[in-house]
Amino acid sequence: MTAPLENVLTTLRSKKEEYLEGLKACLRIPSISTLAENRKDMYHMADWLQEAMRQAGLENVAAMDTPGLPVIYGDWLHAPGKPTVLVYGHYDVQPVDPLDEWLSPPFGAEVRDDHIYARGASDMKGQIFAQLMAVEAWMAEGGCPVNLKYLIEGEEEIGSTHLDAFIQEHTDLLQCDIVLNCDAMIHSAARPSINYALRGLAYFELEICTAQKDMHSGMFGGAVHNPIHVLTDLLSGMHDSRGHITLPGFYDHVPLLEEEERTLLAEAPYDDADFLKTSGAFALHGEEGYTTLERLGARPSLDVNGIWGGFQGEGAKTVLPARAGAKLSMRLIPGQILEEVEKQLRAYIEQAIPEGCEWTVTCQSLGPGSVMNWKSPYMQAAVEAVSEVFGVKPFLRREGASVPVVRLLQERLGVDSIMLGFGQPDDGIHGPNEKQSLSVLFQGMESYARFMDRVGTIDPAQSHD
Amino acid sequence: MTAPLENVLTTLRSKKEEYLEGLKACLRIPSISTLAENRKDMYHMADWLQEAMRQAGLENVAAMDTPGLPVIYGDWLHAPGKPTVLVYGHYDVQPVDPLDEWLSPPFGAEVRDDHIYARGASDMKGQIFAQLMAVEAWMAEGGCPVNLKYLIEGEEEIGSTHLDAFIQEHTDLLQCDIVLNCDAMIHSAARPSINYALRGLAYFELEICTAQKDMHSGMFGGAVHNPIHVLTDLLSGMHDSRGHITLPGFYDHVPLLEEEERTLLAEAPYDDADFLKTSGAFALHGEEGYTTLERLGARPSLDVNGIWGGFQGEGAKTVLPARAGAKLSMRLIPGQILEEVEKQLRAYIEQAIPEGCEWTVTCQSLGPGSVMNWKSPYMQAAVEAVSEVFGVKPFLRREGASVPVVRLLQERLGVDSIMLGFGQPDDGIHGPNEKQSLSVLFQGMESYARFMDRVGTIDPAQSHD
Repeated sequence: MTAPLENVLTTLRSKKEEYLEGLKACLRIPSISTLAENRKDMYHMADWLQEAMRQAGLENVAAMDTPGLPVIYGDWLHAPGKPTVLVYGHYDVQPVDPLDEWLSPPFGAEVRDDHIYARGASDMKGQIFAQLMAVEAWMAEGGCPVNLKYLIEGEEEIGSTHLDAFIQEHTDLLQCDIVLNCDAMIHSAARPSINYALRGLAYFELEICTAQKDMHSGMFGGAVHNPIHVLTDLLSGMHDSRGHITLPGFYDHVPLLEEEERTLLAEAPYDDADFLKTSGAFALHGEEGYTTLERLGARPSLDVNGIWGGFQGEGAKTVLPARAGAKLSMRLIPGQILEEVEKQLRAYIEQAIPEGCEWTVTCQSLGPGSVMNWKSPYMQAAVEAVSEVFGVKPFLRREGASVPVVRLLQERLGVDSIMLGFGQPDDGIHGPNEKQSLSVLFQGMESYARFMDRVGTIDPAQSHD
Repeated sequence: MTAPLENVLTTLRSKKEEYLEGLKACLRIPSISTLAENRKDMYHMADWLQEAMRQAGLENVAAMDTPGLPVIYGDWLHAPGKPTVLVYGHYDVQPVDPLDEWLSPPFGAEVRDDHIYARGASDMKGQIFAQLMAVEAWMAEGGCPVNLKYLIEGEEEIGSTHLDAFIQEHTDLLQCDIVLNCDAMIHSAARPSINYALRGLAYFELEICTAQKDMHSGMFGGAVHNPIHVLTDLLSGMHDSRGHITLPGFYDHVPLLEEEERTLLAEAPYDDADFLKTSGAFALHGEEGYTTLERLGARPSLDVNGIWGGFQGEGAKTVLPARAGAKLSMRLIPGQILEEVEKQLRAYIEQAIPEGCEWTVTCQSLGPGSVMNWKSPYMQAAVEAVSEVFGVKPFLRREGASVPVVRLLQERLGVDSIMLGFGQPDDGIHGPNEKQSLSVLFQGMESYARFMDRVGTIDPAQSHD
């Protein structure tokens, strides 16, 4: 180990209490991008982040305008001849409902045992914070082994609406050799993992309207359309009895899973019982003919994420509502054509909906999936850094969730991303009681420090082929 | 016309402005029985009603305890040898959501053109108020032509939970020859109607739970049960493609509709286009093989009254929820065995739900339907009173909605009910912008006054057979 890296690791190990206080401050800002009432918190968070980046030693730190929430940029470009790493992250978080299921306030950042509980602890303020602390520790040794740029957006949880235009407007500024995307997780501390593929996401709101006004179910029930019935019929028909999605043409561009990759995926240290325990679900269920890991990473899925209509209060109200709606989303496999999914959904509804029912479909988010070169020297650097910190070689896998920016950066800048983040599957991201293991986060800081060290040995001119 | 009746009608016609002020005061009390936060308003309403009854000249007016909200009683028993009429009504109202669809505040009692807009205007404070004004006008002439008793409950909109026990405890007090049930409506002012049959109601809440906690749809979607999918599959399967309800045994005790009654029902001045306009619905839909009027009055129906699960806010949240639920209710035909409906629902769910899903069914309301003797002298009195006021003979029909108290009073006191009230189908009861036509309500006052006059000519000893 070189002396600077050893010093960096010593620093990281000695300042844990200080880091914990900083992390708490970061997690206590309720930066929910989807809710209008949290708009001022978003700007507060953007300010906090810029200050933390300056403290870490980054330069040219600025909140850069978009038509929506600002992108936070910063850089440090004093490692001539070394690769330039673009660090990607987001400073926004998901809403916190159902609030009454949180055991401590979602923006309280309470520590219980090894975990810190807060919205954004795992997804993904914790990861950004860990990466910045690793940079700060390197800077204390006189500088980083690589050049750094930062692209931290504020709209990831609402579909990164303005990110593509921003990247296109600033392709020169963002030029780099590799992206370090910290919006990621490992399988577990005992068996860490790194993802080489991500699913895309298409998210829609569907509303059904069958009348001009709510009606009394006794006076009209049984003689007119009930929009909840129309909606449940439509949603129920979107899967067949074998778990296939029935939207016309939906599987046209889903690549067949090759035997070689099925074998690779089957090598993951996967266990049904562990998976169920992690998820909190009572039973496995999915498309016939595929393993759970294949269903999660290599096959598309369709989920209703929300549904509403009529009376939801206490007691009994005999209303026959005029309208009902649902949020539904598809996880897409690289190869599926994003723009066609809305057409397929509309075609399905048109053929399935009874006459005399009005409907609207609104696309609320659309992000592509991607597959990356897992044999690149940058991936090897990540594998080695994680191996050294966790004491075991990480396995490679396909991820079920979506990180559309990975594909965007492939398309716009021509660079792959290394998905390196230290959340875990049972962190409860997007749900109540989101948490982050503190010991794993500290291991994450060391991994980031070692990753930069390893990347510093790569010749960027030779890494492109 | 006898002099007293003529004087009563003159009184009713001369005091409309005064009545309107009284009606507004009554409608401004938010007596929502299902919501805990409106509990004090319920008692306020009970006090207001007792005062109005005393003002009308009734005696022994009192709020009588039940384990829930009080029943308001009153009587006037100074017409020896004349029939005793038990007036039934309720002083509670439905909740007001969706609040943002009301054009004026639901408890503002705003008058626009011929209508007064308020929750409870039509269902049914307006009707009780009209009946009391008719009594008051008779009292001003020295007394009523009939003996009167009042049974005004505060829990009709929450299933009349304590009414049966109350009636059983007070059968002597409530003895009567006929019930005048004001919780009713006419087809229209041009073609008034009186109901002789009512559907029953069974109301349930169903909840599905597939996991211990909400999950991220990207991490788990496609590999575990989504409770919204389970719920929509269950609800969708409750009707077959012909509009039949699929709960096992559901039609076992539904009486066949005889040809004679189909002919009677077909005589109603019914028109699809008018019906659609009144309902506000865009299209008719129902059980194959039956007309709309048959579907509404003579066939059972099943409606989902509310549904919820997952994310219902603005924007996109990729949650895979742990639970989802629905309110569903069945309108039942006299003959169907109330207690069996829950068993049928449970049997359906047991056979249809996938393994690994937890579910609960809670019965929230259970009320029987009833059919009455439409040839009795009391029914004739009602037909004649309405004929004289509206200038056209009312037609008789089966009603789709439920008024469980009608069956209760048949069972416990052995008396039929005359359903005489002056709401109309397009009043929007239970929905936003509930309204009552003021001109029709004033015609209702006259109808009640004439009804009492006619009933005063019936020999109660001969009316029982």
